[in-house]
Amino acid sequence: MYEGKYAILGTGALGGYYGAKLQKAGLDVHFLLKSDFEQVSQHGLIVESKDGDFTLPQVNAYNDVAKMPKCDVVVVALKTTQNHLLPKLLPSVVKDGGIVLVLQNGLGVEEEITKIVEKVHVIGGLCFLCSNKVGAGHIRHLDYGHITLGEYIEGYAATGITDRMQQIGNDFQAAGIEIELSTDLLLGRWKKLMWNIPYNGLSVVLNARTDELMADTYTRTLVEQLMREVQAGANSMGRTIPDSFMQTMLDYTVKMKPYRTSMKIDYDECRPLEVDAIVGNPLHKAQALGVNLPQISCLYHQLKFLDRRNGVGH
Amino acid sequence: MYEGKYAILGTGALGGYYGAKLQKAGLDVHFLLKSDFEQVSQHGLIVESKDGDFTLPQVNAYNDVAKMPKCDVVVVALKTTQNHLLPKLLPSVVKDGGIVLVLQNGLGVEEEITKIVEKVHVIGGLCFLCSNKVGAGHIRHLDYGHITLGEYIEGYAATGITDRMQQIGNDFQAAGIEIELSTDLLLGRWKKLMWNIPYNGLSVVLNARTDELMADTYTRTLVEQLMREVQAGANSMGRTIPDSFMQTMLDYTVKMKPYRTSMKIDYDECRPLEVDAIVGNPLHKAQALGVNLPQISCLYHQLKFLDRRNGVGH
Repeated sequence: MYEGKYAILGTGALGGYYGAKLQKAGLDVHFLLKSDFEQVSQHGLIVESKDGDFTLPQVNAYNDVAKMPKCDVVVVALKTTQNHLLPKLLPSVVKDGGIVLVLQNGLGVEEEITKIVEKVHVIGGLCFLCSNKVGAGHIRHLDYGHITLGEYIEGYAATGITDRMQQIGNDFQAAGIEIELSTDLLLGRWKKLMWNIPYNGLSVVLNARTDELMADTYTRTLVEQLMREVQAGANSMGRTIPDSFMQTMLDYTVKMKPYRTSMKIDYDECRPLEVDAIVGNPLHKAQALGVNLPQISCLYHQLKFLDRRNGVGH
Repeated sequence: MYEGKYAILGTGALGGYYGAKLQKAGLDVHFLLKSDFEQVSQHGLIVESKDGDFTLPQVNAYNDVAKMPKCDVVVVALKTTQNHLLPKLLPSVVKDGGIVLVLQNGLGVEEEITKIVEKVHVIGGLCFLCSNKVGAGHIRHLDYGHITLGEYIEGYAATGITDRMQQIGNDFQAAGIEIELSTDLLLGRWKKLMWNIPYNGLSVVLNARTDELMADTYTRTLVEQLMREVQAGANSMGRTIPDSFMQTMLDYTVKMKPYRTSMKIDYDECRPLEVDAIVGNPLHKAQALGVNLPQISCLYHQLKFLDRRNGVGH
């Protein structure tokens, strides 16, 4: 078991779940909170989970990053729409030579982080987790939970399996979280975008669940066309997603229970949409490399309009 | 003044308005109706118009095309979503050597008509009309009204100004309707699509008025990108729409009063959308000529989904 300190930036459905599991396994975890700070500092965290409910009556809760100890591993579990806060948060909490672990969707965040803090290692994690925050400090874990880890180096070049990945993997596995280690973070991110771009995007624009999008021949065709563009985007950065993976995603989605995507939930709750990280960044990366993704561009412009109009309070 | 008979197929906001104007000017007009038949056959038509209100207490009203006389000019004023009725309607009502005048939006209807009735001349009309049906046989004309006429010949080749165009032009002008004669129907249709595709399409998908689409930088950019694709579509059929025309459409729309497009009104009223004529046909024509219009394709697939879901009663 690793002796270092973990920080969780963003103690919500995702950060709260993984952080609580780590603490339960005996790790030294420090949670940054905002609206739930009072509740959690007094009463801790409650996790209802399909793998077994548990309560942590006492946790290290903070509402100010300046009060947190320097941590060895800083887990970024904010929504990407909060990433403008990172320049204020990260330098204060991460140790020199420490690790920033980005548990977010989309593309480009690892790169941004290396511009904010030098002398750290950045690892990206792709989470497959169904979890909701149902109240202050109260998390309901519905399904899945595994994470694919990959280390970021400049230009998203493929890496080997580093000791750091191994070590974080061991900690998470000790906490009962399934971990896969990947030598190619960028490929993993693009593969995840192959699902996230069409389904998150269309679910908001068309006010539709995944099953509706798959049942209609027109939207199913559009999903496939968008997936082809994601494939082309990955290609523009030197990564190949095979057609068989695309087919797997389609089949998998057909078999899923009717599902309201995370972006649709954010939209319905009038929260900011993760449209830049999930749609804009991949689009602009590919464009910068001379590859146009016109249907993703269409979706991006539609989502930006809807996000702005929805977000009087953003 | 022409001595022939006019038939109006579809006595709604558009057909009712133009037909009433023609009858008022002394022409012999025969109206086909459906839901308003009882009312109109007993009480005629009422037109409220910015150019002066008038009533026609008695009109030749029919609810069955078989009871109509053979006419010299048959005005197709149905919504394009009703065009599946044309094979039943047209052969019965148009004289050999007569004219079918298509006052509809979109692309491809003239060509379809030549497959339904031979031995007729087909003229297309692009109407710039703001008019609503506010009750049975009761039309409110809000603004504009001019029509650009162009004759159809096979393959949408450019024509000269034919005698037939001239003659219909004279009749309409005698009825106080401003007429322009065009030697290139296809170019006119594509120019109109440059407005209709982005604004009708996005107004439905994004639940937005024209002013909202123009005020937001993202949707304004998307409108422009869609207009570029319309330009490319016109190009695929050998027609050139200059950039200056695109700019004119943008400026004109910015200056317009906030406007709910006709497709949006249809959507809000749960009527079928004219998505095939206005979006699908231009898309598929260009694709058949090897030109892909990916953003129009995206919009098309979105609209088809929304139309189907909206149309439990279609």
